[in-house]
Amino acid sequence: MRREVFTPDHESFRKLARDFIEKHVVPEYPSWEKAGQMPRSTFEQLGSLGLLGTAIPEEYGGAGMPDYRYNVILQEESARALVTLSTVRTQLDVILPYFLAYANEEQRSRWFPGLAAGTLLSAIAMTEPGTGSDLAGVRTTAVRDGDEYVINGAKTFITGGLLADLVIVVARTSTDPENRRAGLSLLVVEDGMPGFTRGRVLDKMGCKVQDTVELSFDNVRVTAANRLGDEGAAFGYLGRNLPQERMTVAVGSVAQARAAVTATIEYVKERKAFGTPVASFQNTKFELAAMSAEIEAGQTMIDRAVLDLVDGELSGADAARVKLFCTEMQARVVDRCLQLFGGYGYMMEYPIARLYTDARVARIYAGTSEVMKVIIAKSLGL
Amino acid sequence: MRREVFTPDHESFRKLARDFIEKHVVPEYPSWEKAGQMPRSTFEQLGSLGLLGTAIPEEYGGAGMPDYRYNVILQEESARALVTLSTVRTQLDVILPYFLAYANEEQRSRWFPGLAAGTLLSAIAMTEPGTGSDLAGVRTTAVRDGDEYVINGAKTFITGGLLADLVIVVARTSTDPENRRAGLSLLVVEDGMPGFTRGRVLDKMGCKVQDTVELSFDNVRVTAANRLGDEGAAFGYLGRNLPQERMTVAVGSVAQARAAVTATIEYVKERKAFGTPVASFQNTKFELAAMSAEIEAGQTMIDRAVLDLVDGELSGADAARVKLFCTEMQARVVDRCLQLFGGYGYMMEYPIARLYTDARVARIYAGTSEVMKVIIAKSLGL
Amino acid sequence: MRREVFTPDHESFRKLARDFIEKHVVPEYPSWEKAGQMPRSTFEQLGSLGLLGTAIPEEYGGAGMPDYRYNVILQEESARALVTLSTVRTQLDVILPYFLAYANEEQRSRWFPGLAAGTLLSAIAMTEPGTGSDLAGVRTTAVRDGDEYVINGAKTFITGGLLADLVIVVARTSTDPENRRAGLSLLVVEDGMPGFTRGRVLDKMGCKVQDTVELSFDNVRVTAANRLGDEGAAFGYLGRNLPQERMTVAVGSVAQARAAVTATIEYVKERKAFGTPVASFQNTKFELAAMSAEIEAGQTMIDRAVLDLVDGELSGADAARVKLFCTEMQARVVDRCLQLFGGYGYMMEYPIARLYTDARVARIYAGTSEVMKVIIAKSLGL
Amino acid sequence: MRREVFTPDHESFRKLARDFIEKHVVPEYPSWEKAGQMPRSTFEQLGSLGLLGTAIPEEYGGAGMPDYRYNVILQEESARALVTLSTVRTQLDVILPYFLAYANEEQRSRWFPGLAAGTLLSAIAMTEPGTGSDLAGVRTTAVRDGDEYVINGAKTFITGGLLADLVIVVARTSTDPENRRAGLSLLVVEDGMPGFTRGRVLDKMGCKVQDTVELSFDNVRVTAANRLGDEGAAFGYLGRNLPQERMTVAVGSVAQARAAVTATIEYVKERKAFGTPVASFQNTKFELAAMSAEIEAGQTMIDRAVLDLVDGELSGADAARVKLFCTEMQARVVDRCLQLFGGYGYMMEYPIARLYTDARVARIYAGTSEVMKVIIAKSLGL
Repeated sequence: MRREVFTPDHESFRKLARDFIEKHVVPEYPSWEKAGQMPRSTFEQLGSLGLLGTAIPEEYGGAGMPDYRYNVILQEESARALVTLSTVRTQLDVILPYFLAYANEEQRSRWFPGLAAGTLLSAIAMTEPGTGSDLAGVRTTAVRDGDEYVINGAKTFITGGLLADLVIVVARTSTDPENRRAGLSLLVVEDGMPGFTRGRVLDKMGCKVQDTVELSFDNVRVTAANRLGDEGAAFGYLGRNLPQERMTVAVGSVAQARAAVTATIEYVKERKAFGTPVASFQNTKFELAAMSAEIEAGQTMIDRAVLDLVDGELSGADAARVKLFCTEMQARVVDRCLQLFGGYGYMMEYPIARLYTDARVARIYAGTSEVMKVIIAKSLGL
Repeated sequence: MRREVFTPDHESFRKLARDFIEKHVVPEYPSWEKAGQMPRSTFEQLGSLGLLGTAIPEEYGGAGMPDYRYNVILQEESARALVTLSTVRTQLDVILPYFLAYANEEQRSRWFPGLAAGTLLSAIAMTEPGTGSDLAGVRTTAVRDGDEYVINGAKTFITGGLLADLVIVVARTSTDPENRRAGLSLLVVEDGMPGFTRGRVLDKMGCKVQDTVELSFDNVRVTAANRLGDEGAAFGYLGRNLPQERMTVAVGSVAQARAAVTATIEYVKERKAFGTPVASFQNTKFELAAMSAEIEAGQTMIDRAVLDLVDGELSGADAARVKLFCTEMQARVVDRCLQLFGGYGYMMEYPIARLYTDARVARIYAGTSEVMKVIIAKSLGL
Repeated sequence: MRREVFTPDHESFRKLARDFIEKHVVPEYPSWEKAGQMPRSTFEQLGSLGLLGTAIPEEYGGAGMPDYRYNVILQEESARALVTLSTVRTQLDVILPYFLAYANEEQRSRWFPGLAAGTLLSAIAMTEPGTGSDLAGVRTTAVRDGDEYVINGAKTFITGGLLADLVIVVARTSTDPENRRAGLSLLVVEDGMPGFTRGRVLDKMGCKVQDTVELSFDNVRVTAANRLGDEGAAFGYLGRNLPQERMTVAVGSVAQARAAVTATIEYVKERKAFGTPVASFQNTKFELAAMSAEIEAGQTMIDRAVLDLVDGELSGADAARVKLFCTEMQARVVDRCLQLFGGYGYMMEYPIARLYTDARVARIYAGTSEVMKVIIAKSLGL
Repeated sequence: MRREVFTPDHESFRKLARDFIEKHVVPEYPSWEKAGQMPRSTFEQLGSLGLLGTAIPEEYGGAGMPDYRYNVILQEESARALVTLSTVRTQLDVILPYFLAYANEEQRSRWFPGLAAGTLLSAIAMTEPGTGSDLAGVRTTAVRDGDEYVINGAKTFITGGLLADLVIVVARTSTDPENRRAGLSLLVVEDGMPGFTRGRVLDKMGCKVQDTVELSFDNVRVTAANRLGDEGAAFGYLGRNLPQERMTVAVGSVAQARAAVTATIEYVKERKAFGTPVASFQNTKFELAAMSAEIEAGQTMIDRAVLDLVDGELSGADAARVKLFCTEMQARVVDRCLQLFGGYGYMMEYPIARLYTDARVARIYAGTSEVMKVIIAKSLGL
């Protein structure tokens, strides 16, 4: 069906992204998978082409066009080419919004040029071992000492933590036992600060070009000038960006499900079983037809939600509906696609195997399907 | 999420429809269910309010606003009130388009005023015993004899056949064995024509206010002036309206699924099990949350497709995607809703039982889910 | 796969049942559906053939062979013939066990001969309006007055209540607010007792040959000689028979799912679509193959559980597992079968429509799927 | 429910296997996963304990107890300990049957002692690049030259190919184009034969301790004394063992699904979310309860089929039903289990991630679910 989401400007950006991905990502991707990361030089290339700074004000080297649709395009084009842009999605959709919303003038001057240029990489450190996504359980502390905070604690599941130059750490600056949610602040820890160490790179099922690490903070002293926004305000900040964080997962899910179907259609046309193309079996046709309908449902939902988000009209509950539906849909689709590949679908050299293992996390991160249901149920008065 | 489908004019129409349904349909509905039909007087009331003639030119008593969205509203408002408007949906969405597209001036003068006024009821007779939806298998013949056609044959599954004043009969006017699809014409048989009899009213699982009958034609003589469009052109005509026919089922599916969820939410809040409201169980919340996400997916798909249809841009394959997804979604949703009613869900006095039995046909009529998959698969090059 | 459940004696009984059903049930079934019940004369025929009294001691006219497998056979043979034996299943599997376990000598003499002969029909009245299956919520009272109890209250969802000569009423004989479960007793109310009236016959979605009614008790005086078992002991009694009650639903589910598949295979072989038998489509084959595997899973589970039950080794949690799996499986299967019938599947004259509407209650009665999950979860230590 | 499959002898064997696995497999397993194989020394330990030779006649160092239940036990105990025994399953259940059935006296003397002792490892080379499981498409040739066959061709997806001392190669010894299925023979290629090379070790999604390799044969000369069974008879041989090959996958699926549920129950009891144990959420309970019912269905099906297989009574269609149901069930279960682990489920250090990636192949190898449906459909006369 028609999409009425993008303008000609968006489509020019899409062309730029597509060309870059085809030339500079696709050929290198297998080596990045082995390395477990995308090299810094590629982040810088992306930056110099303007692909990272669309939302950053022009005065800091960005394009001054804060428009979520550019991020959508990056994901759609990556998925189309059967790759990912490593941690770019997280940096743009999850982390950058905090910088944009809460950095003061001085911080903007210090960090925005590097973020736009791809020379400053970022991560956000929220989750702790054993607490999951429950902010009330954060135990990492930041004790004020003069002009500094002294941070102690451990974080885990940190996307992009390996290369990050700037890590936004969610830490407890006050420990009022009455209100576990208050007392959280955002502090930017920089690479090289004494006491800040990167721990194990976690061995994930998929998402191999996107490192996930443990971080530890042992008496890390951070100047108060590195605090993002107000002290004690982090809980509210973190909640406000959730719709976009969830949308971004959903956008990826639909784009990757679509890519899986496209790859599968190609495969079944070529591949023969028992002397005839797999595509000629009615089961193959029906499976792909059913998936195609599901993807179209997901796509129309995404398109509606993207416009709502762009206009600041997407509620948390609707973002949850979109994430829940699209990620569950992706799971059904990639599983059925893989099945049509037969034994080859189980081999990591076939992209469908990667799409399958990558997909499994979509129902989990940025809030599990169960958390989405809790949010939706509340909105229904239940 | 936001809906950007309707204008203020549509919303005025919606208010009119809603009021009518609340006052004139809801209180009578149980008696109509017993009778197996809506009385002619109600069709006439609908007509006099202008609810039937929006698409009919003003010179014939209509509003001259051919806009599928008015039909959408009638369905949404019926579903909202947990009723149906009997065969109105079929008459407006399936049959009227043939009259509008192919009736000549003389036919328009004869029939349009009555169709707009609700005094002429209509049906279309396509399916025959044993052939299903395969037009190539039509065996009813219409042999030209001077200025007349002589029709012989039997039709089944005819919605609204019991009260229809005008029946568009798909008949074979030529029997070239080389091309079974050519040679079909549309002939309007009128109530009272000798040899035209209405057979059994079929006992359906649901849709009790919408009669489905067998018709038979025994040397029925019909003037050639009652032929709609060109001789031998019916196959093409019938194909052209399929997207709208399928959309109309899908629109109903989403609206009824939504109504089911609304009714279930009310029920679980009131109803207690083991001393606590059913709404307080996490399972109840999660079930309804998951359904809510599915309905939102269906709704955004419908809204996109309605605008495409209105603009003449909805392809047959996309209509098939919409019908497939929305009807399958409805099935999942009403089944889960009914489960939350427990034993009461099995009692026909609860609307959920009716929504459940009504829903089962949506995956079948206007082309089964399997036929939808065939159509979609073709569009994928499979 | 092999079934190692039945002995030659069982198979003789099966032959008897099968013959009876073919000769005396199948031809009459449509008229029973209209009447909403099986006539008393048929109960008496069943009785005189010995089909009702297998478990009743010989001295009272039974066969003295308490063996649940005879009941299984009655269900399997009914399902095979696409009929039901009205309320026989409930009388044998749900109600008779209470008589067998708790009737004293005098009661046995009074009631067993009639129960074996099919001249005394029975029902059990447990559920009340608004309380569902929660025994703690029973509000019907039985106040002792000399040698009698005076019963007041209302019951609903009573299977077989219309014809029942004996109704086992679960009533509160003591109202200790500390223990709502204690204080329940079983009292046998007889047809004709003053104050005992049968209310509405509920209009169910399916199970049309099995009446479900409301009963009311207005100062019904019942002699204490009609109390089954000890005063205040009903809660324990009712719990003890639950595994068999649930098994009996599961046995029916598998047998009916199997019958649905058999009927569908016949249908798709005969029926043509687009010129070829529906059976020739790969989708048809795959659907039926998948169902066949599911049914075999259900059958092996049933066979294992039947032997465990016969040996008194079936736990409540395992009975819950069997009911949960088999009824959910039945739902999936009959839905897929119906779909293969196309439009005919929606017509009540086709048995698949009846199998579909009958099936919907299986996940609800004798404990909903949700209640089964509660029971299973407890057994897992959750 | 009760299992009536194993005798005390089997249970002694189970204890032996369990002890061995706990002491010698579990502690080493992580290192084997990295190495991608189990060391030869462990095969020899298994052999010396008698775990490999139960089916091999005593005169060749085995136990002379051909009983499939010993193999079942090895799988159940491995799954229970959350490990696999590398390629042992394939060697015992897929390959050994060919040796047992078709090896002549001389071959028995040469190979059986080593197979029983775990010093001779085996593989079977059937699949070729591009032909999948279609035997009619085998292109590897074995041309008779005096007392030898000269083999040329390539094989892929060969389980255990890396360490195999004996590879049963399915090769074409005659090329009658009329009958592509005839003309296949089994030839045992030995490690070190000139022209026999092992190619790439394929990078699979899971099953990391079980190598899968490509093999190539370039003018490999094999003595006719290494032919298993008759020339041209391989097609029949290969078909005869299919029920056992499929059972073996199904047995593993149920055992691993059960292990997944056990591990998940432990996890949710320990793990807290939002301050309460995950086990305390109703969703968690319901999910695990539903899985528990499914596993019990699978288990009863397996137990029935194992006894049928042991008695030589398991049909190909029933084996297909068992494989289809049990592998699809496993897929549903491990996916739901993983979800309950949240983010940890995506980390390969948690066994659930391994169970998930291991499981994906079960619906594919030894015949895909689609092939199972083809077989079942045939047995239904479709």
